[in-house]
Parts: sequence; structure tokens; C-alpha cells
Amino acid sequence: MTALPKILVINPNSTEAVTRAVDEALSCYAGAAQINCVTLKEGPPGIELQQHADSVIVPLGQMLKREEANHDAFVLACYSDPGLHSLREQTTKPVLGIGECGLLTAMTLGHRVGVIAILRKSIPRHLRYIGAMGIGDRIAAELPLEIGVVGLSDADRTKQRLEEVGKQLRDGHGADVVVLGCAGMASYRAGLQQALGVPVVDPTQAAVGMAIARVRLGW
Amino acid sequence: MTALPKILVINPNSTEAVTRAVDEALSCYAGAAQINCVTLKEGPPGIELQQHADSVIVPLGQMLKREEANHDAFVLACYSDPGLHSLREQTTKPVLGIGECGLLTAMTLGHRVGVIAILRKSIPRHLRYIGAMGIGDRIAAELPLEIGVVGLSDADRTKQRLEEVGKQLRDGHGADVVVLGCAGMASYRAGLQQALGVPVVDPTQAAVGMAIARVRLGW
Amino acid sequence: MTALPKILVINPNSTEAVTRAVDEALSCYAGAAQINCVTLKEGPPGIELQQHADSVIVPLGQMLKREEANHDAFVLACYSDPGLHSLREQTTKPVLGIGECGLLTAMTLGHRVGVIAILRKSIPRHLRYIGAMGIGDRIAAELPLEIGVVGLSDADRTKQRLEEVGKQLRDGHGADVVVLGCAGMASYRAGLQQALGVPVVDPTQAAVGMAIARVRLGW
Amino acid sequence: MTALPKILVINPNSTEAVTRAVDEALSCYAGAAQINCVTLKEGPPGIELQQHADSVIVPLGQMLKREEANHDAFVLACYSDPGLHSLREQTTKPVLGIGECGLLTAMTLGHRVGVIAILRKSIPRHLRYIGAMGIGDRIAAELPLEIGVVGLSDADRTKQRLEEVGKQLRDGHGADVVVLGCAGMASYRAGLQQALGVPVVDPTQAAVGMAIARVRLGW
Amino acid sequence: MTALPKILVINPNSTEAVTRAVDEALSCYAGAAQINCVTLKEGPPGIELQQHADSVIVPLGQMLKREEANHDAFVLACYSDPGLHSLREQTTKPVLGIGECGLLTAMTLGHRVGVIAILRKSIPRHLRYIGAMGIGDRIAAELPLEIGVVGLSDADRTKQRLEEVGKQLRDGHGADVVVLGCAGMASYRAGLQQALGVPVVDPTQAAVGMAIARVRLGW
Amino acid sequence: MTALPKILVINPNSTEAVTRAVDEALSCYAGAAQINCVTLKEGPPGIELQQHADSVIVPLGQMLKREEANHDAFVLACYSDPGLHSLREQTTKPVLGIGECGLLTAMTLGHRVGVIAILRKSIPRHLRYIGAMGIGDRIAAELPLEIGVVGLSDADRTKQRLEEVGKQLRDGHGADVVVLGCAGMASYRAGLQQALGVPVVDPTQAAVGMAIARVRLGW
Repeated sequence: MTALPKILVINPNSTEAVTRAVDEALSCYAGAAQINCVTLKEGPPGIELQQHADSVIVPLGQMLKREEANHDAFVLACYSDPGLHSLREQTTKPVLGIGECGLLTAMTLGHRVGVIAILRKSIPRHLRYIGAMGIGDRIAAELPLEIGVVGLSDADRTKQRLEEVGKQLRDGHGADVVVLGCAGMASYRAGLQQALGVPVVDPTQAAVGMAIARVRLGW
Repeated sequence: MTALPKILVINPNSTEAVTRAVDEALSCYAGAAQINCVTLKEGPPGIELQQHADSVIVPLGQMLKREEANHDAFVLACYSDPGLHSLREQTTKPVLGIGECGLLTAMTLGHRVGVIAILRKSIPRHLRYIGAMGIGDRIAAELPLEIGVVGLSDADRTKQRLEEVGKQLRDGHGADVVVLGCAGMASYRAGLQQALGVPVVDPTQAAVGMAIARVRLGW
Repeated sequence: MTALPKILVINPNSTEAVTRAVDEALSCYAGAAQINCVTLKEGPPGIELQQHADSVIVPLGQMLKREEANHDAFVLACYSDPGLHSLREQTTKPVLGIGECGLLTAMTLGHRVGVIAILRKSIPRHLRYIGAMGIGDRIAAELPLEIGVVGLSDADRTKQRLEEVGKQLRDGHGADVVVLGCAGMASYRAGLQQALGVPVVDPTQAAVGMAIARVRLGW
Repeated sequence: MTALPKILVINPNSTEAVTRAVDEALSCYAGAAQINCVTLKEGPPGIELQQHADSVIVPLGQMLKREEANHDAFVLACYSDPGLHSLREQTTKPVLGIGECGLLTAMTLGHRVGVIAILRKSIPRHLRYIGAMGIGDRIAAELPLEIGVVGLSDADRTKQRLEEVGKQLRDGHGADVVVLGCAGMASYRAGLQQALGVPVVDPTQAAVGMAIARVRLGW
Repeated sequence: MTALPKILVINPNSTEAVTRAVDEALSCYAGAAQINCVTLKEGPPGIELQQHADSVIVPLGQMLKREEANHDAFVLACYSDPGLHSLREQTTKPVLGIGECGLLTAMTLGHRVGVIAILRKSIPRHLRYIGAMGIGDRIAAELPLEIGVVGLSDADRTKQRLEEVGKQLRDGHGADVVVLGCAGMASYRAGLQQALGVPVVDPTQAAVGMAIARVRLGW
Repeated sequence: MTALPKILVINPNSTEAVTRAVDEALSCYAGAAQINCVTLKEGPPGIELQQHADSVIVPLGQMLKREEANHDAFVLACYSDPGLHSLREQTTKPVLGIGECGLLTAMTLGHRVGVIAILRKSIPRHLRYIGAMGIGDRIAAELPLEIGVVGLSDADRTKQRLEEVGKQLRDGHGADVVVLGCAGMASYRAGLQQALGVPVVDPTQAAVGMAIARVRLGW
């Protein structure tokens, strides 16, 4: 393989700060892939409700159509994986979701997976997805920060809540690995892992790793 | 309660024959509810792929907005329940999906539920939904007719395949109740039940029954 | 259909106050069904133990035999659904249990179902039933009031405990819908829903709704 | 311990041939326990329906009351374990069911448990019990002989059907251990195991072994 | 059967105090079996990590080879059941593990099983095993003492922690039966049961009971 | 990152042909990682029984000790993942098993995963592992070739059996993705995928992809 895999990472919300944080978190793949992080302008500021998730599926399909020829694989950078199976029907190239890949990767790092959600109202949607994936037996619990996507840029409050909720997952629910349940938490991963003493998974990082492998493998 | 519950039953595909068949199947509720069956004109001829299901969610939301004031409850007449949780966020009135209600009602009629899908490619989507509902332990199997939504109007072939697949579910997989996995199969219910000797659930009939109750109950 | 569905609702315990509360809770179905609430005189004052539940099965079968010709459907108004499958073998008319229907209906109102039991010793029995139904993945938790069936008529204490336990289910266990785990709690439903801000299901109301639909459908 | 544990084994059906076959199968415990096999005269000829199972619970409780003082432990010799939890409430001495103990013992002999039922109509009842026990993931399948309890005394036909069904469980469903789903099949165990080449569990033998241990342990 | 079953109980750790405690706990089987408790000298002082468990499998196989002719059945007296399936391949005689038998026996004594582990780091290993057994739906929770195998000889501290953790399992997680998750806790069983008011299972006692039955049965 | 990740891929059986086939299958990662495939000389010719799997754990730990400093991550190239959790305790560097990673990767390629085993007697061991992973709901079935590890070098017979078994998984069990249940099947992946028309996962390729990502990520 002479050229590096070209991965399009799509932030389905319109908050550029999230796209930038994701981009930065993916710098570890420099030299392993050409990663292109883009913002879905049609998206809402954050995917907080089911209707937010559902509303971006059609525009995501249009973006896929435009970008399909220029990329080798596609990563949906929203923990709810909006439109994942829809997009998979529309291309033969790999499409990976960060929710799916974050959880599957966590399953190689610990036995009981704790998930940190942004908002309480996001949790039933995530639990339906975990049920659809058939991995509920591995989930210790999912607990909310009660901070919205945009609010994640307030670093002090976010960091504090991440640690509080992470400790609750670890001590109250027996989680031995934690997944960040939103792409917008990427910049807090390392610090949280340090604070908790258990692995913390940034799902976008996990998904891009799996996408690079899929391109290499050609299946 | 002086007025009858007004139920809007929305066929999210654009095949009027399906809407008519559904309407006819609901005649049993005459005197119990005012039922209004409509076709989503923006829909595809049939919901056969995930992208079909996802594509109707936004138009369904718009229809809900237009019709919310005139109805007491809403029924999504597509076995994939497209946009169910999205619509629930957009109104305080009951929104019920026929996939959900058909399966739950079947669970009161037998222990092992067999499902008849239109197409093999619909099955993974349905299985994800069954996983999300957390009822996989009650599903005997789901098998396809390999007839598309439009093809269901060919009565001879459809009837024959329904009986073949129904018997396979009953004898090969131990199903003691069968759910029709598409609104467009409604007119075949009674005949199939006769042929199989086990209860056959038309999911739209099941959902409308639960919708009427919810309006009566006011919760 | 000229005549309204005739539904026999049987309270298998001998506490008339429970039968009256159930009857009142079903007034919302006036005009939709003829509902006849009766007390099983042979029953114990409350179904609190497995032996209570098992002891009423034979008398319930005798009552079914006497009343079968005069009714279109039968509802067992005890959350343990004593004799449900036994009665189903003894008639071709619909027999529904409030435990089953309450839980299934709750699954259309929220993702994580909390159950309020009367007594701690009732919970293992209920959990066996939930296991038999195959819906354990949807149960957040079941917690007891530690008030017996007869004690439920003490409105102040019952109301207070319902709110305490309901909040524990909602906040400590993530329940987003609550089921009243005893027919005798019917009169507290609306107040508890108000207090908790999540849907509260009275299982007898849910079961009668499904019974009416079944009579209409004729299957 | 000077005296041997006294175990009362109760056949809840009224077919003496079943009681005798069970008694003979328990001869292996000579010297380890005093085993008293009795027939519940009030029982039906076979427990084939849910109403049969439910009808014997009250008489079983009366027998327990009469015999409690004279025995150290009680075994219900019907695969449906009728009244198991009811009886447990009525004595502090061990009460074990052959369905429960047969399945649990099989789980130490193979990974995928096949069950041979007498009749197809018994299977949903057994599956509800397996669900209540929470062990469904270990069940390969349950298949019927379509021979009633009384018909089991026709040795040629029974032996032939046991081998047919056993091979179907082993080869078609991957069972590596088989449980006899009726106390009345006890005399066929050894021959069937020989024919199948996988362990075959007689559930009454399994339950009596666990009962003897419980008496010895005093808990 | 003229001779008593000869059961070899192997403590795979090298701590003789554990072997002695196990031996004493098995005195209830005097007259029912000849029980020979031995220490695996090659074992580590305690099986606390996965590598401890894995390291004893080959020596256990060698001990089995040496002792096979002299015994009728073999019991692995470590809750992690190291090498259980490996040993089963190496002999046609029964090999039982105390983890497996302790949990299965507990399932006949209560509905929600609580497990007391020695160390937090043992729990993921145990949970993997519970998953492999397919009985996770019956587990209320597993909580650690945070006392190592050797530390269990400190009776005051151990007793206190067992009661604390047992009460947490009972009151916080709804456990109605408790399993001691280490052979070295045997001597505390009776006291803990007294303190908790729910059955407490010593898994070695449970396993030996099942082993004796298996020898009697000859299958 | 200036240097490429150094991945040690260990074939725990002593059959060099397997190591060579694995090495060749990993050529797609040229330029992405330095991959070193080695044979565990102490291993048996094939890991076909539980005792084979267990026997290599201690030597694997010794190899890890020798090679830890020279590599960034370790991949166990045996579908049974022998010693996976033991090795993880012995190093802070990533250790991945091909069973685990093959199955998790398959879960991103289809909904119902079919597994092709070498031998029928391997299947219970694999099923215990699938249970431990908590992903049983996603497994369509596992079926054997009945060809041992060494026999896999007979290309004609192996190819034919792979296609037969693959079609049985696809058509009889509804698998929409297939995992090769042995490292030694790597050279047949592409041909089998062509023949079946559904994705076929070589688990070693999947695991190395995840290992490379883990090294890049540094967690």
C-alpha cells in the first residue's frame, strides 16, 4: 500500500469546537492515515435528542455521496451513531460509528463498561442502542454529566463532573473501564484516565483505529 | 367521555394499496374510535431498507405537527417503527408503533413468537429493534417471504408464501404465535391463522387497540 | 359490533376495598366496555405469598366456568397473574393478566421499568415471572413498600411510601416509567405520576384496555 | 449423623407405574438415604397441561403438612416442579424440584442442554420455567416425544422416540447433554445415554442427590 | 454399593490452613463418603489473579493422573474452578468445581444470588465465569472483602467484613442468598448465615454433595 | 510517531505452517507496523482441546517476559485466546486475542455472526468464551469442519468444507457475517467470502488492526 488510508471523520453536529477537539485527539494517527475531520453544517449544535439524531441522517447520506470517491472509510463522530446502518447501505466502503467502536474497544480493556452521557435524556436512546448491539451484559451503568454538548467547552466544570461521574461508575457500579459517551469529551480523556486509574476510551479514537485497519484489510 | 378517540394511522410508505388494506383491517374498531388512515406521500413505495425507514422520519414529524391538534393518538403503520422515539419527543399525546405493539401483543398470545418479514434484507434491521426492545428471548425466528411491499398485492403468491413461511416458523422453530412483519400483510391475517392453527397478529390492529386504550386512560 | 365488549375483572383476593378501587379506576372505559368487577370470595385477604397465588387457581377456574358464557374476556386483577396460563387452557376467549399487560404497556412508555411491590417477600416471585416473560433487560429494579394489601387503604402512609420508593426507582435506578405492582394501588396512580414526573402504569387499566381490543379484534 | 436422611419423593400424578419407575431409579441411593416414594392420589394421571400442574399444588401442601415431621427433605417428582415455591414457604426443610435440579445438574455435564418433553403442549410451560430460572442461554432446544405420561409404559415406542428426539437434539441443535423432561422416563435413562453417547440426566436422580446433600449440610 | 464414595478434594493453593478449614467443613459428610482433602504444593499461597488460576492447571492435571485410580470423584476447592474443563477431558470420573456447584446450589435457595469475593481484582475473573455459565441474570452483585486468601485467617476482621459485605448484598442489591466466593471462608459460613438471616452457601460443601451423588449415580 | 508499532504475533501451537499462513495474511499491514510472527515451540500441534489451551499459558507468559521489551503490543493467534487475561496481568502493554477481536470486528460487519470451528469438540469451549464475553445474542451458530489444525493444510478438502459449513451458517442460521474460528484458516478467507457473498473475518487480521491502533493511541 503506497498511499495512506483516507478517513473522513464527520461530526454530525454543527459545533466546530467539537470538530476541532476530535481532530486534535486524532493526531496520534499522523503517519498512519490521512484524516479529514468535517462538520455537518446542517446538524444541530448538539445531538441531544432522538430527533436530533434522526434529523441528520439524510444530510449525512448526501455528504457521503459527495465524499465517497475521495475517501477510503467513513467515521460517524457522534456517540449515537446516527444513520450508521443507513450509510452502510449506501456505500461498499467501511462506515464505522464511534458508539459501536468505542463500546467494542472498551470490551477489550475491562469487563464492566461504564458510560458517561452528556444528559439524562440521552440515556434511554443509548440503552436502546446497547440492546440492539446485544452487549448489555457488559454494561455496568450509564450516568449523565447533565452538561449539554455546547457546555462541554467549559473545561473546569466538565472536568469536575467527569471525575465525579467516573468515580460513581467505578466505585458504585463496579466499572473497570469507562467510555466517553460524546465525541465532544475527547480532550478530557487522558486527564480522566489519570484521575480514575482505569482505562478511559475516547470512542472517536477507537473508531478511527478500526477504520484504518478495515482499509488496510480491504474487507 | 362523549367523543370517540381520534386515532391517526400513518402509512409511511406511499403505496395507497397498503393504506387501504390497513383501513379495512381496522373496521373492527368502528364504534370504538374514529380512525383516520393516511399515506405519507413523501415516503418510498415500501420501507425495505434502513435508509427508507430513516428517510421518512423528518416528514413524519412534519405530518405530526400538522395533525397533532386534530387527533388524540398516532399510530405508525410500518413494522420498522421509523421515527417512533423521535415523534414521542415532539408531542405529549400517545404515539405507538406497530412493530412494538405487534410484538408485545403477541407475547400475550404465545410463548415463542415467529415473525414473517417481507425481505431477507429487512431482518437485521428488525433484529436490532428486537434487541433494543429487550425481548429477544421470546423470538423463535424471523423468516422472509422474499416479496417486496408492492408485490404483496399479488394475493395468490403472497398467500402461498405466508403459509410456507408460517409453517416453517411453527414446525421448524417452535413458534406458537406469528406476527405479520409488515402493515401490508393485514388482509391475509385471518386466512393465515386458519391455515396455521396458531394465533396470527396483525400489528396495526394490535397498535390501534393499545392507542385507543391510552386515549381513554389519559396517560 | 352492536354490543359493547363484556369484560369480567376478577380480584382474586377477598378484600372488597381492592375490588372497589379497581372498579373506580376503570370508569375511564365507560362507553367502551361493560366492565364487571368481582371479588373471589375464596381468596385470601391479599396475595402476598406464592401459596396465596397458587391457592386461588382452582377457584378461579371454577369462576371462569360459571361466567364464561356471560363475558367476552377475562382480566385477572392481581399483579402475580395467578393461574393465567391455566385459565387460558380452559377457554378460547381472551384471558389477560394485569402483571403481564402492565409491564408490556410500560415498555411503550419508557425504557427502564421500575416496579413498586407491596412486600419484599413478593419480589422473588415477581422476578421469576419477569424472567418467564423474558423481559428482564427492561427492568430497572423492583422495590417494596413494605405495606401489605390490606394496609394499602391507609392513604397517608401509602402515598408517602409510594413517593419515596418511586423516587428511589427514578433517581437511584434510572427508571423512566413505573408500574404499580398490586391492583390495590390503583387509586394512587395519578398522584404518584404527578409527584414523580414519569408515567405511572396502573396494570389493571392497562390490561382492560388490551382486553377490549382483543374482543374487538376477535382473535 | 447416625440416621440416614429421610427423603420423601412425591409423584404428583396418580400413575403408580411412574412412582414405581422412580423408586427403582433411586435404588442407587441405598445406604445413603431412606427414600420413600409416594403417589399423590389426588393428582391427574399425568401432568400434561398447566392446569394439571396448578391443580396439585394445594394437595401437595396438605401432604407436606402430614409428612413434614417424618422426613428430612422433600422432592417433587414432576419435571414442571408444581408448587415448588409454595411448598418452600410452608416448611424450613429442603424442598427440591426435579426440573430445577435436573437442569442445574445437566449444566455440570455439558454446555448445551437438550430437553426431551412428553408433549408439544408442555414445552411453553417448561420454557417459562427455564426463563424464570434464568438459564435459557444454556438450553440447546426442547423437543417433544408426543407420547403422554401414561403412554410412556409402552417401552418399544418410547425407546424409539427417545432415541429419535435425542439424536435430533444432539445433531440438529448441538446438545451435549440431555435431560429427561418427565419423571416417568427414568427407566430409559441408561439405554438412551448408551445410544446417544452424551450424558443423559434423570432429573429425579439428580434432585434426590441434591436433597441428601442438603440434609447432611443442615442448611 | 458396599464402599463409600471416595472423593478427592484438592485445594489448589498452598495454604494448608485453607485445606484444614475445608476439611473441617466437610465433616458433615462423615458416613456418606470418604473425603480426602489435599493441598496442591505447587500452587501459590492464594488464587487471587488469573495467572494464579492458570498456573495450577498443569499441576492439577498431574495430581489427577496420580490420584485417579484411588478416587471416585474430584472436587476443585477454589472458587475460580481453575482447569475444570481441562481436567474433565482427562478422566471419565466426575470432576466438580466449587464455583460452579456453589452457584448452582444457591439457585435452589434464593432467587438473587450475592457473591462475596476476597479481592476487587478477582471479580472480573468471576464475572467472566458467570457469563460462561450463562447465569448472570440470577446474580444480584459480587462485592469484595478486600482481604487476601492468607488474611482470611484473621477471624475478627474477616467476620466483620463478611457481615458488612453480606448486608450490602442483601439490602443494597436485593440478594436473598449469598455464596462465599473462596474456599477459605468455609469456617465463617454458619455465623454469617445467622447474622444475615438468608442462606449462605459454602461452595465446597455444595460441590462435595453433588460429587457424592454423581458417584452413586454412576453417570 | 517516528517508528512503526512493533507487534508480536504468537502462534501458540507448534505447527509452523499455521505461523507462515498467519504471517502472509498480515502482509496487508506492511508500512503500518513491524509484525513479528513466532511459533510457541512448547505448544501442541494444534489447540483442539481445553487442556491444549491451558497447557500453553505458562510458556506464553515466559515468552511475553522475554519479548516484552522488544515489542509494543502482543497478539495471541489462537481463536481460543489461551491465557489472554493472564498475560494482560503481566504487562502494561496491549495484549489482544484473535477470538475476542475477530468476534468484535464481525459485530461491525453484520448482525448475526456465524463461526466456523475446526472440530465439534472445540465448540463448547468457544461457547463458554462467547458467554464470558457477553455477546451470545449476536451469534447465529457455530458449526465445525471436523478437520483438525494440521489437516487444514489439505487445501481442497478444507476449501470445500468451509464453503459447505459457511452456506449452512448463512442459509440455515441466518448468519450475515462469518468468523474463521482458527488462525490456521487465514489463507482461505478471501475465497470463502467470494463464495458466500457475506463478509468473512480472519480474526488474526482483525486483532492486529486493533493492536496497531492501541499502540498509536498509547492507552
